Amino acid sequence: MKKSLGPRTLAFTTPVWCIGTYDANDKPNVMTVAWGGICCSVPPCVNFSLRKATYTYECVLRHNAFTVNIPSARYVKEADFFGIASGKNTDKFKVARLTPVLSTLVHAPMVDEFPMVLECKLVFHHELGLHTIFVGEVLDVKCDESVLNKSGLPDIEKVQPLVFSPDVRCYHSVGSLVGRAFEIGRTLR
Amino acid sequence: MKKSLGPRTLAFTTPVWCIGTYDANDKPNVMTVAWGGICCSVPPCVNFSLRKATYTYECVLRHNAFTVNIPSARYVKEADFFGIASGKNTDKFKVARLTPVLSTLVHAPMVDEFPMVLECKLVFHHELGLHTIFVGEVLDVKCDESVLNKSGLPDIEKVQPLVFSPDVRCYHSVGSLVGRAFEIGRTLR
Repeated sequence: MKKSLGPRTLAFTTPVWCIGTYDANDKPNVMTVAWGGICCSVPPCVNFSLRKATYTYECVLRHNAFTVNIPSARYVKEADFFGIASGKNTDKFKVARLTPVLSTLVHAPMVDEFPMVLECKLVFHHELGLHTIFVGEVLDVKCDESVLNKSGLPDIEKVQPLVFSPDVRCYHSVGSLVGRAFEIGRTLR
Repeated sequence: MKKSLGPRTLAFTTPVWCIGTYDANDKPNVMTVAWGGICCSVPPCVNFSLRKATYTYECVLRHNAFTVNIPSARYVKEADFFGIASGKNTDKFKVARLTPVLSTLVHAPMVDEFPMVLECKLVFHHELGLHTIFVGEVLDVKCDESVLNKSGLPDIEKVQPLVFSPDVRCYHSVGSLVGRAFEIGRTLR
């Protein structure tokens, strides 16, 4: 028997993404979001959502550009901090002792220490309510060589991304391999 | 040194969500997507993306309703099957031997065996390219009592949702607790 929990933002899994932008003075900023994901294959697009009150909101619209920086579990403290502090009154990179690197493709900074980053140009945004959804076209995905598998693709067990539990407010790691996609279900046909 | 992998839909983590809909003949259908997430807190909204060619595309628009069914890892085979087969020529619930239950809030079926389901009414959709993004307002979240923690919220370690790796085409489980959100980063202030 299922129990009703009411209308709320409660779903698994949600990612931990650090959105990199520059402000009006070209100070690099970074903010953690869990409302986000991939939303189109051609062109490759990702989306994330922001409240208007955030500093990142105006930064994204100013430059029509952002990066999605994916922290590994060892940077959980820094990622959490990026979701607590505001770029309005804090140089988050400095406090966290992480290195902003200017993307060569868009006017947005990348977190050098994180293993995986997507460079995106803003293509669409729409106000849904408290949050506005932003969609960016992925111009490039860059990864540390150390997290790539033999086929040159990032291995999730090496990237060690975080998973966020809404409402419960926990970060979890990614666990073990459960199955191969587009394969394991074939036995049911 | 980071390696460029080009513009592609490669980001961690992405969820494994089974979208439930009814077709024109009220046959229950369910399709697995990894392009999706939470996108607004007030009202609570989730988004997912579909190609126009999918059967679910027309079903969602027909009834302006869908459910997000979150499979636990033990249903990896069924979830994968829901992403391989098409509702055009398959009764996926029957083949997978899972039970469709009509939502009392929206005209869409829920997968009874999955531990967590969101009942949603469509509020917005927008064609981005190959994929169209759909946004639904969450009218209710329903969970099996067995996956709830002492506070009455779903425990991700009990729900055991899957994580999908795009391009690498793997399903992983959720691992161990890494830290408490909005807490572990405070030490950096």
